[in-house]
Amino acid sequence: MVLEDLFWARRVAVVGASSTEGKTGHTILRNLVEGGFAGEVYPVNPRGGQILGHKVYLSLADLPGDVDLVVVVVPALSVPGVLEQAAARHARGAVVISGGFREAGNQELEDALLAAARAGGIRVIGPNCQGLNYTPNRLCASWPLITTPGSLAVISQSGTIGAAVAGWAAEEGVGISAFISLGNRCDVNEVELIRFFAGDDRTRVIALYVEGIADGPGFVQVAREVGRRKPLVVLKPGRTEKGVRAAQSHTRSLAGSYEVFRGIARQVRAVLAEDTEQLYDFAKAFALAERPPGRRLVIVTSSGGSGIMATDQAELAGLEVMELDPDLKARLREALPAHCVISNPLDLTGDADAERYRVAVGVASASGADVFLLVFGDPIPGAAEVVEQLRQTVRQQVFVSYLGGGQVQAHEVARMLRAGIPVYSTPERAVRAIGAWWHWGRPGVKEGQSIA
Amino acid sequence: MVLEDLFWARRVAVVGASSTEGKTGHTILRNLVEGGFAGEVYPVNPRGGQILGHKVYLSLADLPGDVDLVVVVVPALSVPGVLEQAAARHARGAVVISGGFREAGNQELEDALLAAARAGGIRVIGPNCQGLNYTPNRLCASWPLITTPGSLAVISQSGTIGAAVAGWAAEEGVGISAFISLGNRCDVNEVELIRFFAGDDRTRVIALYVEGIADGPGFVQVAREVGRRKPLVVLKPGRTEKGVRAAQSHTRSLAGSYEVFRGIARQVRAVLAEDTEQLYDFAKAFALAERPPGRRLVIVTSSGGSGIMATDQAELAGLEVMELDPDLKARLREALPAHCVISNPLDLTGDADAERYRVAVGVASASGADVFLLVFGDPIPGAAEVVEQLRQTVRQQVFVSYLGGGQVQAHEVARMLRAGIPVYSTPERAVRAIGAWWHWGRPGVKEGQSIA
Repeated sequence: MVLEDLFWARRVAVVGASSTEGKTGHTILRNLVEGGFAGEVYPVNPRGGQILGHKVYLSLADLPGDVDLVVVVVPALSVPGVLEQAAARHARGAVVISGGFREAGNQELEDALLAAARAGGIRVIGPNCQGLNYTPNRLCASWPLITTPGSLAVISQSGTIGAAVAGWAAEEGVGISAFISLGNRCDVNEVELIRFFAGDDRTRVIALYVEGIADGPGFVQVAREVGRRKPLVVLKPGRTEKGVRAAQSHTRSLAGSYEVFRGIARQVRAVLAEDTEQLYDFAKAFALAERPPGRRLVIVTSSGGSGIMATDQAELAGLEVMELDPDLKARLREALPAHCVISNPLDLTGDADAERYRVAVGVASASGADVFLLVFGDPIPGAAEVVEQLRQTVRQQVFVSYLGGGQVQAHEVARMLRAGIPVYSTPERAVRAIGAWWHWGRPGVKEGQSIA
Repeated sequence: MVLEDLFWARRVAVVGASSTEGKTGHTILRNLVEGGFAGEVYPVNPRGGQILGHKVYLSLADLPGDVDLVVVVVPALSVPGVLEQAAARHARGAVVISGGFREAGNQELEDALLAAARAGGIRVIGPNCQGLNYTPNRLCASWPLITTPGSLAVISQSGTIGAAVAGWAAEEGVGISAFISLGNRCDVNEVELIRFFAGDDRTRVIALYVEGIADGPGFVQVAREVGRRKPLVVLKPGRTEKGVRAAQSHTRSLAGSYEVFRGIARQVRAVLAEDTEQLYDFAKAFALAERPPGRRLVIVTSSGGSGIMATDQAELAGLEVMELDPDLKARLREALPAHCVISNPLDLTGDADAERYRVAVGVASASGADVFLLVFGDPIPGAAEVVEQLRQTVRQQVFVSYLGGGQVQAHEVARMLRAGIPVYSTPERAVRAIGAWWHWGRPGVKEGQSIA
């Protein structure tokens, strides 16, 4: 079976569905239903009755017909039996949420689970995981409930870290194509999933959190393949001895040497993130912007200090805060008020309105720059409208950074993100993300410190 | 004059007060009034009338009596004259918001401003700045309006960066004691301000953004003095050649070599932040928590992955994720459900409730740890109540990290911050801040990468 059958399941049974709010067996069913899944949903529970308006079947054997996917939320000891019944219903996949297997010292039970799955031709995600969410099929067989569609696929050996990244993407309107919690990954692992997403048109970028690689040679091969087509961003602990030991005790992964992994990542064009926020920051840039054709950056700001911080960090990230040529400077001087600082960073000063950004970027687009970073240091009404226009009219990629909070910003930021413009909460985070995007697939180039 | 007179002004004139919303002369007056300033406020504008219920005086000469402080928002050319009039009113200080001086090439005008101030015995903050806010005196002669009291003093050569840090502090309820925008710092500079805050009981920590130090020997001396009493966190661009050049063109500061500055910072116990968020993260830890007496950290988490990321970053930041001794482990095993992972990080697993954290930290407080980091990987109702109790009952400092969003978290986080508990949005940011606090004043100790 290929994973397509699992992601595009049409008939889904939730075994261990519960009517009790707060129980996982209830949450998963509710998320499936509220997530808008358009196929058949069959709650299964020996108590029968109805849950959320759906008839509850006493067992898989009672279903009116076959199923494609079973989501399993029953006690560990019952799971192998459930998989046998699922096989009788010709299920092709199972998402086993239940814990109590290898992670709890019950390796035999996990072996029994896998044996039942193999005998029945069922592919397994989990056990001991937060489930699977694939927005193109509106299949949220997981928690939290995330329905915002996007082009970011999140694969995570930690349910919490994966859910945090997917949750940030939903909150910001960036959205996800998928979130898969690997759990104990007794069967389906990151290698197969990366291969699936490499071929998935809805996915532009893959964000991966792993503590150890399940299949080293397989990972190298698939990462190299996917690296020709779309970016893979990886967060992996194990940079310190204690981190390695903690990872081993958590998922019994062989973490291996981080330096070796860093070398592999470089070879296969995977991008290493340094922490959880960076995993998201980089993935967001990859998901929303086209890859910058070059490293020449022009920074347009209303705040001199923010422009300088951005300059420093951009240069550290391997970007070039380019010189503007004298002709262009003369044209900018003509187009802008006398107190603006005509340089790069281009400081429009604190009284800049949205129109001044429009004029400045319009003129500066002839600079030969590859990317613009617009820093809005103050609440500037109408900024989103101007940025959306500029994205249509200038050939460069446009990134945005806001600094500070406030209601005007919140509104403008939300609008820009909805329009697909990568916005960051500080100039430093923005330029590191731009740097990562520029570096992707250019391993020979001198690299900034944040780039693997 | 000492700066006390300026911060504790009782009679404040706003010269250039405006009735037009959106104008700086209006914003400053409104913030003074809405900020709850309890002294006298005198709007001054030749048009007269009333603004926000306050009688407008035609000139400083028309005031009913003397003033302590004048806030100046008139065109640059008029500023020296205003300072002469202010001197006639025995003003001791002036906050000159107006721009159009040295930063615009008008050095002579700035010289005239300073000469008038010196002749009149007036100390000047600015010109070309966002003003001054001192919450103990409810004196918000600046924008944005920030009234949340706290123990963090923000001094910034960039109004926007300073306002962002102060704004984050207000948003999170951490609050500020002061925000001073240095502007062109023609007179009062960071050295005097640091000295003032060193002796200010309301201030526990000073956050400083500077592009160049105005007075090198003075800075070394005062930083060394303050370093014996309270932490000074510094963000300074200029780590790259282009960053240095951008800083020079912005504030005509001689940025100097970053490496030299790093060395000085180390000597005088100043903590260097790497970016704007870190300036705030570190300052928050210093403002809210006591300095950890040692580097031994125990991580208690509901998310294995988050615990591992925290472990890695803690060790990189120079902390010790300590081993738990066998006796303590036995007691934890007895007190906690069987599926918890009894180690450090102590993984209470995804079904942990607040009570389980209470039990775990209660037992683990006998470990000899210096600091706890509690990672809440899931929305856990009642977490804030338990953390507040623990802070009373265990001798260790308690830091908290949440991962991801959600309404339950937002509520619990707000409550913890209000109670003065340092909460961070990722475990990595939390442990870097703990690391900075532990390293403060221990320059001989092997340092993590994030610590200057």
